[in-house]
Amino acid sequence: MAQNRLADVMKNRGNFTVSLPVTLAALSTHAQNLHSQVKQFIDTHIVPFEPEFLKWSNDQKTKWTIHPHMERLKAKAKSEGLWNLFLTKDYDPSCQYGAGLTNVEYAFIAQEMGRSLIASEVFNCSAPDTGNMEVLVRYGSEQQKQQWLKPLLNGEIRSCFAMTEPAVASSDATNIRSSIRRQGNEYVINGHKWWTSGAMDPRCKICIFMGKTSADGSAPVHKQQSMILIPMDSPGVKILRPLTVFGYDDAPHGHAEVLFEDVRVPVSNILLGEGRGFEIAQGRLGGGRIHHCIRTLGAAERALQLMIDRVQERVAFGQRLVDQSSIQQDIAKSRIDIELCRLLVLKAAHVIDVIGNKAAAPDVAMIKAAVPVLACKVVDRAIQAHGALGVSQDTALSHLYAGLRTLRIADGPDEVHLRTVAKLEILSRNMAKL
Amino acid sequence: MAQNRLADVMKNRGNFTVSLPVTLAALSTHAQNLHSQVKQFIDTHIVPFEPEFLKWSNDQKTKWTIHPHMERLKAKAKSEGLWNLFLTKDYDPSCQYGAGLTNVEYAFIAQEMGRSLIASEVFNCSAPDTGNMEVLVRYGSEQQKQQWLKPLLNGEIRSCFAMTEPAVASSDATNIRSSIRRQGNEYVINGHKWWTSGAMDPRCKICIFMGKTSADGSAPVHKQQSMILIPMDSPGVKILRPLTVFGYDDAPHGHAEVLFEDVRVPVSNILLGEGRGFEIAQGRLGGGRIHHCIRTLGAAERALQLMIDRVQERVAFGQRLVDQSSIQQDIAKSRIDIELCRLLVLKAAHVIDVIGNKAAAPDVAMIKAAVPVLACKVVDRAIQAHGALGVSQDTALSHLYAGLRTLRIADGPDEVHLRTVAKLEILSRNMAKL
Amino acid sequence: MAQNRLADVMKNRGNFTVSLPVTLAALSTHAQNLHSQVKQFIDTHIVPFEPEFLKWSNDQKTKWTIHPHMERLKAKAKSEGLWNLFLTKDYDPSCQYGAGLTNVEYAFIAQEMGRSLIASEVFNCSAPDTGNMEVLVRYGSEQQKQQWLKPLLNGEIRSCFAMTEPAVASSDATNIRSSIRRQGNEYVINGHKWWTSGAMDPRCKICIFMGKTSADGSAPVHKQQSMILIPMDSPGVKILRPLTVFGYDDAPHGHAEVLFEDVRVPVSNILLGEGRGFEIAQGRLGGGRIHHCIRTLGAAERALQLMIDRVQERVAFGQRLVDQSSIQQDIAKSRIDIELCRLLVLKAAHVIDVIGNKAAAPDVAMIKAAVPVLACKVVDRAIQAHGALGVSQDTALSHLYAGLRTLRIADGPDEVHLRTVAKLEILSRNMAKL
Amino acid sequence: MAQNRLADVMKNRGNFTVSLPVTLAALSTHAQNLHSQVKQFIDTHIVPFEPEFLKWSNDQKTKWTIHPHMERLKAKAKSEGLWNLFLTKDYDPSCQYGAGLTNVEYAFIAQEMGRSLIASEVFNCSAPDTGNMEVLVRYGSEQQKQQWLKPLLNGEIRSCFAMTEPAVASSDATNIRSSIRRQGNEYVINGHKWWTSGAMDPRCKICIFMGKTSADGSAPVHKQQSMILIPMDSPGVKILRPLTVFGYDDAPHGHAEVLFEDVRVPVSNILLGEGRGFEIAQGRLGGGRIHHCIRTLGAAERALQLMIDRVQERVAFGQRLVDQSSIQQDIAKSRIDIELCRLLVLKAAHVIDVIGNKAAAPDVAMIKAAVPVLACKVVDRAIQAHGALGVSQDTALSHLYAGLRTLRIADGPDEVHLRTVAKLEILSRNMAKL
Repeated sequence: MAQNRLADVMKNRGNFTVSLPVTLAALSTHAQNLHSQVKQFIDTHIVPFEPEFLKWSNDQKTKWTIHPHMERLKAKAKSEGLWNLFLTKDYDPSCQYGAGLTNVEYAFIAQEMGRSLIASEVFNCSAPDTGNMEVLVRYGSEQQKQQWLKPLLNGEIRSCFAMTEPAVASSDATNIRSSIRRQGNEYVINGHKWWTSGAMDPRCKICIFMGKTSADGSAPVHKQQSMILIPMDSPGVKILRPLTVFGYDDAPHGHAEVLFEDVRVPVSNILLGEGRGFEIAQGRLGGGRIHHCIRTLGAAERALQLMIDRVQERVAFGQRLVDQSSIQQDIAKSRIDIELCRLLVLKAAHVIDVIGNKAAAPDVAMIKAAVPVLACKVVDRAIQAHGALGVSQDTALSHLYAGLRTLRIADGPDEVHLRTVAKLEILSRNMAKL
Repeated sequence: MAQNRLADVMKNRGNFTVSLPVTLAALSTHAQNLHSQVKQFIDTHIVPFEPEFLKWSNDQKTKWTIHPHMERLKAKAKSEGLWNLFLTKDYDPSCQYGAGLTNVEYAFIAQEMGRSLIASEVFNCSAPDTGNMEVLVRYGSEQQKQQWLKPLLNGEIRSCFAMTEPAVASSDATNIRSSIRRQGNEYVINGHKWWTSGAMDPRCKICIFMGKTSADGSAPVHKQQSMILIPMDSPGVKILRPLTVFGYDDAPHGHAEVLFEDVRVPVSNILLGEGRGFEIAQGRLGGGRIHHCIRTLGAAERALQLMIDRVQERVAFGQRLVDQSSIQQDIAKSRIDIELCRLLVLKAAHVIDVIGNKAAAPDVAMIKAAVPVLACKVVDRAIQAHGALGVSQDTALSHLYAGLRTLRIADGPDEVHLRTVAKLEILSRNMAKL
Repeated sequence: MAQNRLADVMKNRGNFTVSLPVTLAALSTHAQNLHSQVKQFIDTHIVPFEPEFLKWSNDQKTKWTIHPHMERLKAKAKSEGLWNLFLTKDYDPSCQYGAGLTNVEYAFIAQEMGRSLIASEVFNCSAPDTGNMEVLVRYGSEQQKQQWLKPLLNGEIRSCFAMTEPAVASSDATNIRSSIRRQGNEYVINGHKWWTSGAMDPRCKICIFMGKTSADGSAPVHKQQSMILIPMDSPGVKILRPLTVFGYDDAPHGHAEVLFEDVRVPVSNILLGEGRGFEIAQGRLGGGRIHHCIRTLGAAERALQLMIDRVQERVAFGQRLVDQSSIQQDIAKSRIDIELCRLLVLKAAHVIDVIGNKAAAPDVAMIKAAVPVLACKVVDRAIQAHGALGVSQDTALSHLYAGLRTLRIADGPDEVHLRTVAKLEILSRNMAKL
Repeated sequence: MAQNRLADVMKNRGNFTVSLPVTLAALSTHAQNLHSQVKQFIDTHIVPFEPEFLKWSNDQKTKWTIHPHMERLKAKAKSEGLWNLFLTKDYDPSCQYGAGLTNVEYAFIAQEMGRSLIASEVFNCSAPDTGNMEVLVRYGSEQQKQQWLKPLLNGEIRSCFAMTEPAVASSDATNIRSSIRRQGNEYVINGHKWWTSGAMDPRCKICIFMGKTSADGSAPVHKQQSMILIPMDSPGVKILRPLTVFGYDDAPHGHAEVLFEDVRVPVSNILLGEGRGFEIAQGRLGGGRIHHCIRTLGAAERALQLMIDRVQERVAFGQRLVDQSSIQQDIAKSRIDIELCRLLVLKAAHVIDVIGNKAAAPDVAMIKAAVPVLACKVVDRAIQAHGALGVSQDTALSHLYAGLRTLRIADGPDEVHLRTVAKLEILSRNMAKL
């Protein structure tokens, strides 16, 4: 972050009250009920469906299509009101679109979803739709909302977010080079993007695209970028190929490399206005980061459960694995790592609830830098305790690891978040000494 | 912990509400005021005195005596009501002895004390007196309270705690071999103890001693130990020598090796009754562990501050240290480590506040296993950033490190706490699957 | 390892001379020439072919077939004498089959092969054929050699090794349950195996199978297992499915789950005799472990090269990545890790050369416990420095990581090797004190 | 290192032969005999004296004086020819001063010395005398040798090395500010130094001092520094105080803060000539670093031995510590860490033997960056396994730790060496791609 934005963040933090609910019992009855319903839904309907889903999405003939049961599960979840829970109060104070949860409440619930590789989608709470819907709620025009937000909220379509470019270090968003050029009543878009997650999904109909409207660089450095809505069926949008993470293509979602060649959209498709891209990105990524970290807690929890179950079954050299002190220490360290992460994530969620997304930047940077690293360790220990089973398709472990390891890069690599934390820390220390 | 005690702990945890105050602003006004007074007292009166104190306690001629200014500072703190803050509500519900703080409130305040090597003593909040006073408050007879608790609360005398023995792995308290043998109206005590911290202090007048009353081992394994009060001037109490930790003798406090040879005390000196030693130890050490972890937060905070100040001053190879990404990452990791620890400690404190010391055993085990390890890393990074200055007597860093590294062993080594966490975790998982 | 075998190992080590060649210039001219030829062959013929090969082996239509160019490359390598280099002098003192290299010489050469995901196969030096050929050379009957060793050495067929079983912790080989039952002039084999690498390859014609000939367990515990040759086209051999490692199926090689149901082979197919399976396994796995570790060095080297190239290209926040101290430290640590591993591997290779496979057990255990762990770190750093590119199919990094992470489990998990090292260390210390 | 010096180093490395002797049996008979004599001398005469020495050097009354038995031991070692072994062939090809060992041979022998806190001194092989004698051998004038080298070689006097300054980051030697100003036939020296190790020793008679002869900075940046000999009894040399490392003052050796105020020495005291300080430092520190790393191996070896002995004695929770898998893994990791370090150190020593000190810069940087870090881990594991005993004065462990931790800062902090390794690695990669 630039120095002046850092100072802004610090100023807005001031002296605020955080009383962090850290047990389920500390939540509102409403939230406790939702949590219980979601948990039960997952255990009853989603966990048993997982193997079938994975088979489908690993089969060449079906993988890029939608399993019909997924749509049935979505309908069921929707009918039970377990839907769009991610749209928290801070985005949607009048509960126009969502369930009116706080971020902390959502954290408890979405952690359950994180235990499964597919649960988030069932509840219409999966990335990148969640972030895209947040953007539309907060920054979309009425027409944009009508056209795109509504079907997204209904789970009828899906969306993608085109930011990262293969040619530059996109972790520094000022590097982004794609162009959005105005021509009469249209914008003409050219760019080469990748890691456009979700673009492979046949239901994906709309893309939020980030590029430069200030071609000559005459605008201030953080006002050169804009965001614009591009329908995926626009002429000139070419999906080149799916990218893989550690061998997984994550079908039917998919991580696409996409070429945008002279794509034309009406000027009304711009979000918020020219030069506001950076501003939108800040908010969007903050929300995305906390959602990722929440789901990560669930993933780590699942890995630990699998580990504990496994080491009680196996015997080597005359001793059950669970009775070996090294295995016990791995279990304890994993529980501690998860609990450390859980509290930090809850705190970040609560700070957003209390003082908002922007002022919570230090907390969000901290969880993004800390949680995936620790979760990777938890899953890695579980893999090792499983032996060869742990790297195979017969447990979720290596797939979880691939996702969590990638999360140390996606939405800003660890290094960027550590940099933010450090700069705020130094600023804060220097201010305290004045 | 034994399996049945683990099950007890689990049973008592049930479904409880924790809304964790994590910012100062979330505390009661009373606690905020105390925090502010303590902080100011430390900055104004204690920090400037530290160098003089360290000089005194490193000078052979004076080191085992009390610096007169220390007593003056204690009197001042006492007169301002900044006194015995450690005696929290759970120990002292009627505020008969202490300030009636919650453990969470005390955590905020004692963290400030932890920044200094000597502040805790000034506020009569230093180990092992705190733990010993807690024992006397909870388990002491009226006479014991009158005779020993009162002067301890007044800061007139100090105390020690004799548990660890050189001959056995004392981390497993059932190994302890010292004997407490009844003979008429007296107990005769024999034992060889070490790491009896505080015993070197000339003001130390009373010792809580742990030993076996069941010499033949006929009592159940956790009922063989007792605790008893031994005045330090009893015949047969021989202080053999001060032990050092990484070269520090921590004078005038000191870590003593002590021989108890046919020491005789009246039977009324027994605490709670024969065979209750284990029970008292559980409570005493739980409290001690959280106090240690709280102070550890302050120590880590100080190390990080010193580091940030230092790296802004120094230039190497044409670049300020603070501008190097590796240094920035060390700062960020340290802040994250401290924040992770802080939340976990606050949670443990709050669980004690809500459901009590015993049911909080898993939380206490977690902080004891996690916090000193992470704090050692924080201090170690600060040392490295300081260069040779960091290992010298010119900063507190190496002394802090020595203390924190020792804390990974004292009050139960990491391994014991990890074992507890693992056993509870496995039990808890197995119960959830029923 | 059992205690008595440990003592044997120690006895055979005694006082031996190791003058370790650690630079290429220290090798024989013959070896230097081979090294140079292999290196050039890889750079000229294999590296450019890699992308095409990976495309083929990721295409559903072709993945389980053999790319014709692979066979052409093999023929070329063979014609240039760059063939079967793995069959070192200790296995083949008269150079009947191989090139007569020492293990150290082969280490230098095979490290080059390790840089590529496919080079080993081109030179007929890939697992599990190498280990299987070693077994046949050392323990095969003349008939077995004629029938199976010859076509393997010629690169006409490939082979697999069926040891691990899904039902038991196979890291403790005494757990293995598959049965090999004699019936007249045949053995009847039943068993459920997995991680039978190479079994998916259409060229795979022969399997070395490990199972129990002592069904009633009457033989001593290390004499109950035998190894037997099973032609892959035998009735009752059912390949159930390919297993994946972190999402990779490693086609066309593949890691198969295989069912053996009442498979019948002539009694002459037994290797060495009933009850000798454990003895053969010891030797076979020792050789396999060092080969894996050698290739690992090459993999780590490649990762480091990719990293160095990448960080010189990218700019973030106004600074080339390569100019950031954290990146420089990652590069330096990676070079140091590789050099540490390289020397340890060379030493193990040399100890085998000097005093043989069995007496080198401690050295082999050390490299197997140390090298994959450090190599994983090297590759992980390279992934992070690449950003999202690093987890994708556009570099070899995540595929290399998956393989190296799996190597911490395959051929005995880290824990087993650490246990061996510890037991030898304790024994050795206790003997020194006598 | 500056870019051009890096390129020089690379050029001089070329293609050289290293056949590394890694077992004792691979050394010359002469070296084997010396090794055996030194080892026996240590076990017989030094180890039993250690406790008495430590008592003496911890007693305020005696600590800054020389224990008479130390001088007797020195005399005995000298009479047996176990003397000045450090002066290897590369410094002293004609064996005029030393025993004519190679660096590898010396490494085997000095590793034994490293097991003891005091053995190096007994054999006249302790820092900083070793480095200082090397400087005088290589760069001293005849007169300088006569006056200072001779008594140093005889063990009659000791010496110190004044380089580090409190006011600047001395890890970048161009920062050094002390002035050496010519005035007629004298140099006038002013400077404030610290970490002048050995200056507290009453036998210390001569100081090698580094400072700026180019006061106006007109000389090229690496030609501004000079080294000069300053007799410790010169007027103006003021020892301010002993510094401590983690609470140890390392008496009677001591780490001194020293003020040099208008100290005057004859111009003949300059070493090699004005502006040659940097050049001398490079050589001197290279030698010092390898000596430190060799001794470190011995220190780690001792820690591991203590650990293995201890864990066989203790029982906790019904199991001997040595039978717990976590302890076994700690032992195995320690052995592996030591072996990795040992091979890297031997390689660096051998490269010096073969192509000399300067061209071995990358190897020396690698060992200095790697060995103390890993040795700290080994000692730390041993401390933990000892419980509170491990941090006390009753084992050498915490004292060893303090020394090794300090070594990560002394003679250049880890960061400087990692920087050197990285820069060479990048250069080397870029050259390979040309």
